[in-house]
Amino acid sequence: MAKEKKQVEAITSMEEDFAQWYTDIVKKAELVEYSGIKGCIILRPAGYAVWERIQKELDERFKATGVENVYMPMFIPESLLNKEKDHVEGFAPEVAWVTHGGGEKLQERMCVRPTSETLFCDFYSRIIESHRDLPKVYNQWCSVVRWEKTTRPFLRSMEFLWQEGHTAHATAEEAEKRTIQMLNLYADFCEEVLAIPMIRGQKTEKEKFAGAKDTYTIEALMHDGKALQSGTSHNFGDGFARAFGIQYTDKENTLQYVHQTSWGMSTRLIGAVIMVHGDNNGLVLPPKVAPTEVVIIPIRQQAEGVLETARAVCEKLGGCRVKVDDSDRSPGWKFAEHEMRGVPVRIEIGPKDIEAGQAQVARRDTGEKMTIALDALETEIPKLLETIQKDMLERARTHRDAHTYTATTKEELLEIAANRPGFIKAMWCGERACEEKLKEEAGITSRCMPFGQEAVAETCICCGKPAKKLVYWGKAY
Amino acid sequence: MAKEKKQVEAITSMEEDFAQWYTDIVKKAELVEYSGIKGCIILRPAGYAVWERIQKELDERFKATGVENVYMPMFIPESLLNKEKDHVEGFAPEVAWVTHGGGEKLQERMCVRPTSETLFCDFYSRIIESHRDLPKVYNQWCSVVRWEKTTRPFLRSMEFLWQEGHTAHATAEEAEKRTIQMLNLYADFCEEVLAIPMIRGQKTEKEKFAGAKDTYTIEALMHDGKALQSGTSHNFGDGFARAFGIQYTDKENTLQYVHQTSWGMSTRLIGAVIMVHGDNNGLVLPPKVAPTEVVIIPIRQQAEGVLETARAVCEKLGGCRVKVDDSDRSPGWKFAEHEMRGVPVRIEIGPKDIEAGQAQVARRDTGEKMTIALDALETEIPKLLETIQKDMLERARTHRDAHTYTATTKEELLEIAANRPGFIKAMWCGERACEEKLKEEAGITSRCMPFGQEAVAETCICCGKPAKKLVYWGKAY
Repeated sequence: MAKEKKQVEAITSMEEDFAQWYTDIVKKAELVEYSGIKGCIILRPAGYAVWERIQKELDERFKATGVENVYMPMFIPESLLNKEKDHVEGFAPEVAWVTHGGGEKLQERMCVRPTSETLFCDFYSRIIESHRDLPKVYNQWCSVVRWEKTTRPFLRSMEFLWQEGHTAHATAEEAEKRTIQMLNLYADFCEEVLAIPMIRGQKTEKEKFAGAKDTYTIEALMHDGKALQSGTSHNFGDGFARAFGIQYTDKENTLQYVHQTSWGMSTRLIGAVIMVHGDNNGLVLPPKVAPTEVVIIPIRQQAEGVLETARAVCEKLGGCRVKVDDSDRSPGWKFAEHEMRGVPVRIEIGPKDIEAGQAQVARRDTGEKMTIALDALETEIPKLLETIQKDMLERARTHRDAHTYTATTKEELLEIAANRPGFIKAMWCGERACEEKLKEEAGITSRCMPFGQEAVAETCICCGKPAKKLVYWGKAY
Repeated sequence: MAKEKKQVEAITSMEEDFAQWYTDIVKKAELVEYSGIKGCIILRPAGYAVWERIQKELDERFKATGVENVYMPMFIPESLLNKEKDHVEGFAPEVAWVTHGGGEKLQERMCVRPTSETLFCDFYSRIIESHRDLPKVYNQWCSVVRWEKTTRPFLRSMEFLWQEGHTAHATAEEAEKRTIQMLNLYADFCEEVLAIPMIRGQKTEKEKFAGAKDTYTIEALMHDGKALQSGTSHNFGDGFARAFGIQYTDKENTLQYVHQTSWGMSTRLIGAVIMVHGDNNGLVLPPKVAPTEVVIIPIRQQAEGVLETARAVCEKLGGCRVKVDDSDRSPGWKFAEHEMRGVPVRIEIGPKDIEAGQAQVARRDTGEKMTIALDALETEIPKLLETIQKDMLERARTHRDAHTYTATTKEELLEIAANRPGFIKAMWCGERACEEKLKEEAGITSRCMPFGQEAVAETCICCGKPAKKLVYWGKAY
């Protein structure tokens, strides 16, 4: 067990330095490698496989609601980016510009997409003519580039992978419905697959997306009490349609503008999984997003019958994502390695176990160990995976609720913000000035106005004027 | 049927103008839309869904051989691109350069990847240390950019989607084995899934990849007799490893250079499917790559029981990718529409059919119509799809073989090249000068030196010196 110990010690503990703990996991679980390009990371097999799981689960949910996938060019000509005023103001400062191609200077420079609203609008303006062409519910899986000054793997990088959905509808009602539908789809996905509970709500004017009428968001609480915006869904109204001239003829043969939405989630979710579930032994993956759900480790694998039994068990568990680690490392090394990588369940099988007709089983999330009869594994392991999935969500919810505070006076809010990391529920008058003041005085931002509105006080926590909205406040990644 | 006729007439016939026929299909089957960016296309749902089928089938085959997916940055700093001499000479003229980011001029410009050998080499130089780290068998799905002067949807565009595999091995033998393994995987995939027979062989020195020791290729023959290079697999030897310093310590603790390969296929395959299988009614998709294998069209769908029966049949055929077109278009419009989109099997169900307990079934590939009892559909349709898949490959093979000619004299070769589009098998001395001369005089290039070498003559078709290799020659896309 010497090696196991050594490997575990190599991670900074989260209590000591949460940021360093995060960086250690990301490197030692081999999720990413830094590239020679500032702010760009390489997704290694262990990291990309988690993204593939996310893609598969999300894509199926998208398609079940009628989403169709497309692929748009990665370049946006400057004139196209400039078409919608708020949007260009939001994104132009952080784009990368292509100025030369094929050995020549371009007549018009192009940016690498930071997001593709402008491309989809240009596309829709050419393919939408009649009400029969609506709705358009398109999505693409791609990478985007935003020139960030400070970067962190998964949380903020210059290039990142994501999906971006862009829809066009005949009516404002339909667009609003789709915006909310996708936000709920995102939140359900995060809760059911990533085991991360979400606060669903609306962004304030100050925090909304460049060019949107309304932005909705899902917000999660990390282990250190900071919030992470995990997905957003925007209702554009007909703003982009007017800027890009996207019109259709309705059943009465009248020209109308379409109503649009967009919504996106990214590899940032992997950062959320790390920071919600990880511990001081490394990554902890919820079964549904784990590339390998079960690892079988043969003990004394040279002994007669051990590898055969391990492989037979592996075969029987074929309904799960399972593998046997028959590499020439020691069992202790393997234990630590698969713990670091967050594999939800470990099964150990050695000569003594075989003699007793059983296996040793360990849960990654709790460390709990149990003995299960070899011929019961086939029914027990899938049940155990379900239990782990459920327990992880419950633990994350308990942690979040225990770190969600309600403030009714400014003193209270300042005290919580200073001493108790977490969400702060407090009332707000609706004025941007109060948001700015709280940012300045308490270092917190409005995360969202939750869907389930309640009144915890009658006046704004900041200015004392009549309150309009309950807001979740917090420090955010 | 008026509308059906109209829609079919809207495609140029392939006999009249093959290039225009191709462009018509690509647009009318709604595979792509032109974007506002020169040389960049938009993959619409019907086109992207074919790519998704290709991805799924290929990715499964990759993983079965131990391939792991990763994601690398899209930017390559100029100094990195410049590290391998032949490689940079091949690609530098056709890259797009990013010179500004975040409002500032970059200290070093970066190109958008035209291919990622340099990035993988840089990565491997940092993560490979010992023989225990080998082999690395990584792949990525992404888009690449090459500044092309003349572009055509799928066949040649400025940005295109592909996969690129990059591997590192301890020995030259292992690298060569992987190079050939992937070429055969590609060819098997094309034959079994796309129903396109391939010639497998090696590129000549003149035609090989910039920086490769050896390039292998699969070549297909399009309906117009032109060749299409459909996938390539490169053995780099240790050339890149020496340029990038990728070394490992072997079991004797000696430093060794790794041996590398790379291999790629792209959305170009969709162009091949169109040009091998398409006809004057539109696209014809082999079942295995068809997003929808079976479309059920209700006849007089308002009549009692029609939609219900159609839906019940759809349910029963759940093992296939099947859908009911219950839109408010006429049956004739639907027939033409789904023919244009290449759906392999159409099932018509109307009141009279229901009365007789049967359905009308039509094959897209042959136009053949048959009557099948409703309760036999569940067993007959999957069989029919298999038959179609097999027949399409056989027809493509027959067409290719009928357009493969053997030339033993230069006069013969010139006559064939001028009058009979197709592959020309002829002997070659191995000199680049002869390749250049044949290009100049006959407009043909060497497609490959096939794996199954035979001697159709003793001397080079061009210079008359002793022949070294049998070569497939042709005009290519």
